[in-house]
Amino acid sequence: IKKLAMNLSQLEKGGYPHFMLKEIYEQPKTLLDCIRGRINVEGNNIVLSGVIDNRDKFVRASRIIIVACGTSWHAALIGEYLIEDWCRIPVEVEYASEFRYRNPVIHADDVVIAISQSGETADTLAAVELAKSKGAFIYGICNVIGSSIARATHSGSYIHVGPEIGVASTKAFTGQVTVLSMLALTIAKEKGSIPHKKYEEKVQALKNIPALLTEVLKQSDKIKELSKIFTYAHNFIYLGRGYNYPAALEGALKLKEISYIHAEGYPAAEMKHGPIALIDTEMPVVVIATADRIYEKTISNIQEIKARKGKIIAIVTEGDTVVKDIADVCIEVPKTIEEFEPIVSSIPLQLLAYFIAVNKGRDVDQPRNLAKSVTVE
Amino acid sequence: IKKLAMNLSQLEKGGYPHFMLKEIYEQPKTLLDCIRGRINVEGNNIVLSGVIDNRDKFVRASRIIIVACGTSWHAALIGEYLIEDWCRIPVEVEYASEFRYRNPVIHADDVVIAISQSGETADTLAAVELAKSKGAFIYGICNVIGSSIARATHSGSYIHVGPEIGVASTKAFTGQVTVLSMLALTIAKEKGSIPHKKYEEKVQALKNIPALLTEVLKQSDKIKELSKIFTYAHNFIYLGRGYNYPAALEGALKLKEISYIHAEGYPAAEMKHGPIALIDTEMPVVVIATADRIYEKTISNIQEIKARKGKIIAIVTEGDTVVKDIADVCIEVPKTIEEFEPIVSSIPLQLLAYFIAVNKGRDVDQPRNLAKSVTVE
Repeated sequence: IKKLAMNLSQLEKGGYPHFMLKEIYEQPKTLLDCIRGRINVEGNNIVLSGVIDNRDKFVRASRIIIVACGTSWHAALIGEYLIEDWCRIPVEVEYASEFRYRNPVIHADDVVIAISQSGETADTLAAVELAKSKGAFIYGICNVIGSSIARATHSGSYIHVGPEIGVASTKAFTGQVTVLSMLALTIAKEKGSIPHKKYEEKVQALKNIPALLTEVLKQSDKIKELSKIFTYAHNFIYLGRGYNYPAALEGALKLKEISYIHAEGYPAAEMKHGPIALIDTEMPVVVIATADRIYEKTISNIQEIKARKGKIIAIVTEGDTVVKDIADVCIEVPKTIEEFEPIVSSIPLQLLAYFIAVNKGRDVDQPRNLAKSVTVE
Repeated sequence: IKKLAMNLSQLEKGGYPHFMLKEIYEQPKTLLDCIRGRINVEGNNIVLSGVIDNRDKFVRASRIIIVACGTSWHAALIGEYLIEDWCRIPVEVEYASEFRYRNPVIHADDVVIAISQSGETADTLAAVELAKSKGAFIYGICNVIGSSIARATHSGSYIHVGPEIGVASTKAFTGQVTVLSMLALTIAKEKGSIPHKKYEEKVQALKNIPALLTEVLKQSDKIKELSKIFTYAHNFIYLGRGYNYPAALEGALKLKEISYIHAEGYPAAEMKHGPIALIDTEMPVVVIATADRIYEKTISNIQEIKARKGKIIAIVTEGDTVVKDIADVCIEVPKTIEEFEPIVSSIPLQLLAYFIAVNKGRDVDQPRNLAKSVTVE
């Protein structure tokens, strides 16, 4: 008999020092679970049953309102871009806490989507009840099966990423974005708002995401190493444009939550309307600068920061040469279509936040002042 | 003959040490100029001619999209709440830089409002051209007469606050919110979406705003004094709820721009979804806690921060006793209706940013890295 030198908590963490790191590493598998049974083997068709069962509600929706808080609110912002782009339905994203206390316009032909990992977020649940009272159709995107929001909504989709223990959400975020992608593609196909060839291209790209995440996780050691450089930074700015703008907000939130470093996310082009005054040698700037339609614009934003002596940590597409020449540090991510870039580019930002927090000796899984599920207002 | 011991630049500043302070102090007068000729003497009727001339476009609008950058984007967020509340038209606020590079949904029966002090903001102008190409009706809210955006739009309203020289916008912001208030009230009356008694109440309250600003400016010496306490703070959080949430964002932007302190605004209830991890004795928190519908909710947000040993600077309504007992420092503002609170509560936040920047010896009127009018992307 050999004695196992591990306690129960270590066993639960599957050999990882923290739940958060375990959950970051699980993402290739959790996204596979999330899309399993929803994309066919050929990778040319998606069936998100909650959408198909309520086909007309979505296809005829005059507007989609997404209510959420925190990380889920960032996923919602990506959902807005996806749905407007592919389904041509106007989307409004609201903080649940704001939505519930103002007098929002909701019509009976609006669809309200509520996003919450735990399905117990008090403000989001209250927003669901308010929207329900106005006659809207309510769709839930939750992780916890049978949770309050899952029960209070008319229909919905689970993200199926398994229990998330780390207080800072990682795999739930990528799961939410993946479900929103499948939702948008299902509506677009039913509505005929996307050409079939384009649709198949997107489905195929989504199917490849888990494999890309396995690739990007190989950057972990490099990120661990470069995280040391930034351990004592007091402030950070995170920038992105387009689909990567919400990923920048989410990256900044991760760092805030677990390292207690004041990090703030911005759409890159907003810098010159004020925040660029903050830039000096003491303010590192993380820029998502992947090779997409707006790559050139992002490069000029980087140049503006470098001209003010800012330090740049850039997330770039494999094989990039231009940003590599300007940025102080680069992390490569594999190429995907623009719409799924935030899923891929989130991973190095999760790892960066994680390693900086570990360097600082923070309690990564239980950061101060925070609860996993916010069941109070 | 007596020789005047002033140079031209001092003369232009009207005796104030900086244009910014002069412009802050001008606000009772600039808002009077802004509403002059648009509200009748009795204070029971508003005629915003640009809206009246295009009455049907606004009354029949299926959606209003507001595009802007920086401070104007904050004014737009207040405009969203005003228009949705009074006119029952769904409103979407977009960063101009994001709007122009994605594939936004714009219909011919949408109204697009573009806000820019200078009327030359490159991203906003490009957003106007994009929306125009989709057949939408475009309305401009600018300060500079005959500027590019004023010329590119189908109609519009000037804010009439006079030339703004300080790079950090102050009187243009309150002017923009005032014009948006008059726009929303004009549409609401034409649409019949607001009861007449309520309408008259709002018009009367707007007419009183300049007098209230004169009142609130009397707090200047007190704010100057207390600004000393926070001169060496490295970070700030600004919080508000409802109509005061965008005022919190704007307050944080002012501090960023001219003091180079990293200040970030948040809707107060979002704190517990991550940012509250930042709170300790080193992180002062400015909270707008005026006596409105959501006052009690704001108080519990303050208590959460105090429980984590955060320092609170609260903007409260005259006569407040509850927040005064909890907060470390309080600044009183006179009572107005909830919808106009952001105009009134912005003034002490402008002064706070100004005095902290002066304490730090910053070049208040010409902060580093910033231009008054952003005519490049």
